[in-house]
Amino acid sequence: MRLGALEAGGTKMVCSLGNENGDVLERESFPTTTPEETMPLLIGFFKDKGIEALGIGTFGPVDLKKESPSYGYITTTPKLAWQNHPLLPQLRDALGVPCEIDTDVNAAALAEYTWGAAKGMGSCLYVTVGTGIGGGLVIENNLVHGLLHPEFGHMLMRPIPEDIMPEGICPFHTGCLEGLACGPAIEKRWGVSAKELPKDHIAWSIEAGYLAQMCANAVVCLSPEKIILGGGVMAQEHLFPMIRKETGRLLGNYVQHEAVLEGMDGYIVPPGLGINSGVAGALLLARRAVAG
Amino acid sequence: MRLGALEAGGTKMVCSLGNENGDVLERESFPTTTPEETMPLLIGFFKDKGIEALGIGTFGPVDLKKESPSYGYITTTPKLAWQNHPLLPQLRDALGVPCEIDTDVNAAALAEYTWGAAKGMGSCLYVTVGTGIGGGLVIENNLVHGLLHPEFGHMLMRPIPEDIMPEGICPFHTGCLEGLACGPAIEKRWGVSAKELPKDHIAWSIEAGYLAQMCANAVVCLSPEKIILGGGVMAQEHLFPMIRKETGRLLGNYVQHEAVLEGMDGYIVPPGLGINSGVAGALLLARRAVAG
Ligand SMILES: Nc1ncnc2c1ncn2[C@@H]1O[C@H](COP(=O)(O)OP(=O)(O)O)[C@@H](O)[C@H]1O
Ligand SMILES: Nc1ncnc2c1ncn2[C@@H]1O[C@H](COP(=O)(O)OP(=O)(O)O)[C@@H](O)[C@H]1O
Ligand SMILES: [Zn+2]
Ligand SMILES: [Zn+2]
Repeated sequence: MRLGALEAGGTKMVCSLGNENGDVLERESFPTTTPEETMPLLIGFFKDKGIEALGIGTFGPVDLKKESPSYGYITTTPKLAWQNHPLLPQLRDALGVPCEIDTDVNAAALAEYTWGAAKGMGSCLYVTVGTGIGGGLVIENNLVHGLLHPEFGHMLMRPIPEDIMPEGICPFHTGCLEGLACGPAIEKRWGVSAKELPKDHIAWSIEAGYLAQMCANAVVCLSPEKIILGGGVMAQEHLFPMIRKETGRLLGNYVQHEAVLEGMDGYIVPPGLGINSGVAGALLLARRAVAG
Repeated sequence: MRLGALEAGGTKMVCSLGNENGDVLERESFPTTTPEETMPLLIGFFKDKGIEALGIGTFGPVDLKKESPSYGYITTTPKLAWQNHPLLPQLRDALGVPCEIDTDVNAAALAEYTWGAAKGMGSCLYVTVGTGIGGGLVIENNLVHGLLHPEFGHMLMRPIPEDIMPEGICPFHTGCLEGLACGPAIEKRWGVSAKELPKDHIAWSIEAGYLAQMCANAVVCLSPEKIILGGGVMAQEHLFPMIRKETGRLLGNYVQHEAVLEGMDGYIVPPGLGINSGVAGALLLARRAVAG
């Protein structure tokens, strides 16, 4: 089955051609400028490739209510040119195939759940820590949407005493996770690129502390069977043991499950599919579109 | 259809006889002492009543994994006599009917979702604020379990500056929601019963502040379509407008959905079924047990 996969990001659009097993046959990237410029390039890529369906993992916010008149529209994004843009309807009309859309992180979560680090589990939370922080959640094969879709990045944090910038950089909130722990927040706090901070810099224990608060809250609110942390910042692999240890400390033996009590090494993990969870997730969305 | 409903609580066990529409025909309460004393009373009540199934909403923690050897057992409760007690297996063996079990708050959430304040919605969160704080979550007709089941009560809070007891009373955590905002925490903090505190006491703005943090985090993590707050402390109805206002302030217009931006009055609400959500939920669990 030939399937199309679109990873729609704020800086670039990655178009892939693949199949229902997640194999990728062809790939091309286009810069995200305005819909007028960018949409024809995407349509041009997928047109005449004989795809049976298109799956879209997109930046947000995006309207995911199938019964809504603005289903598949980008909604209130700070990227003004894309506000209220009918992303899914335009692609569906131009390509004439069924399309399925979800957030980029929900797509990644679905891929990790199906083929990656959470394969065989009943639920998983995927959180990306990069330019922003976003979370995707799969429970028993369903992507969780609720009113809109989860926005894990804006969870309220308890300030860490050593933090010299406890208010964070989010324009909406004082001291939310994204405002405190995304890549740009690290860079603003310390005045250097996150990549250049030495491993023993206090930046990392603060970073791990906030991410651990998120993991602990995710355990008490959702108790997902696996927490997967990806994104540019998590390239700092030494963060994983720090986050696991602090999450355990914060939970204080309350959650009596071996995964949390003993198996933290296998509980908070990097993506099993590496950087390919996005495209794999979009292919899975396409597969769902075919299934109807 | 005659159905049995058991609300298993730490102080009392409420046994009801009802039907699939939630009508209650008969009810009796027994004190929760030891399994040796209490279990025969429960079995005595339900025996020979011609019930087709039994639904159980219980205090926890409880093993809810159907494939687990200890499915339906109470697990690590501080009520030592009940630790590792096979609650569901014992009732099922004695009564010879299908049984379905979930936490008391998940049962209440299911009832509110089916017949109460969240009727017709796609998801709801039910939180009880009483001797403890617990949350139940229904998404698209499914009760959310994850590793164990959600433990909303132990979400980490950001200390409120006016709080004179910011560490809380939870033996497991410093500054978790339950430790800061359950009935006994209010009483410990102010040295009087929560019922006796005047409505303009600062206790209530602190209480509302912590509950609002929970609501805001629930919106960003789960975005349930309705948040229902019940339990003894919520009898203080003036808390509702305070919680709604503070939740809106904490969210800072980030979540662009009319329910959150404008409809807060209809978003954070008391239980539609009043004090009957527990029994109604247990009857719904019994109905599910019949359906298999
Ligand atoms: N090796 C690294 N170490 C620490 N931070 C990094 C590293 N690589 C990228 N980052 C940070 O991650 C962010 C980019 O995240 P990424 O997930 O790659 O992209 P995006 O979130 O835009 O999709 C940047 O803010 C950068 O500071
Ligand atoms: N009218 C009230 N105002 C404030 N707090 C109350 C009120 N009634 C009960 N409470 C508090 O609620 C707690 C009991 O909660 P409740 O939900 O009734 O029972 P439980 O949680 O044990 O099932 C007590 O700690 C008490 O302080
Ligand atoms: Zn924020
Ligand atoms: Zn606690």
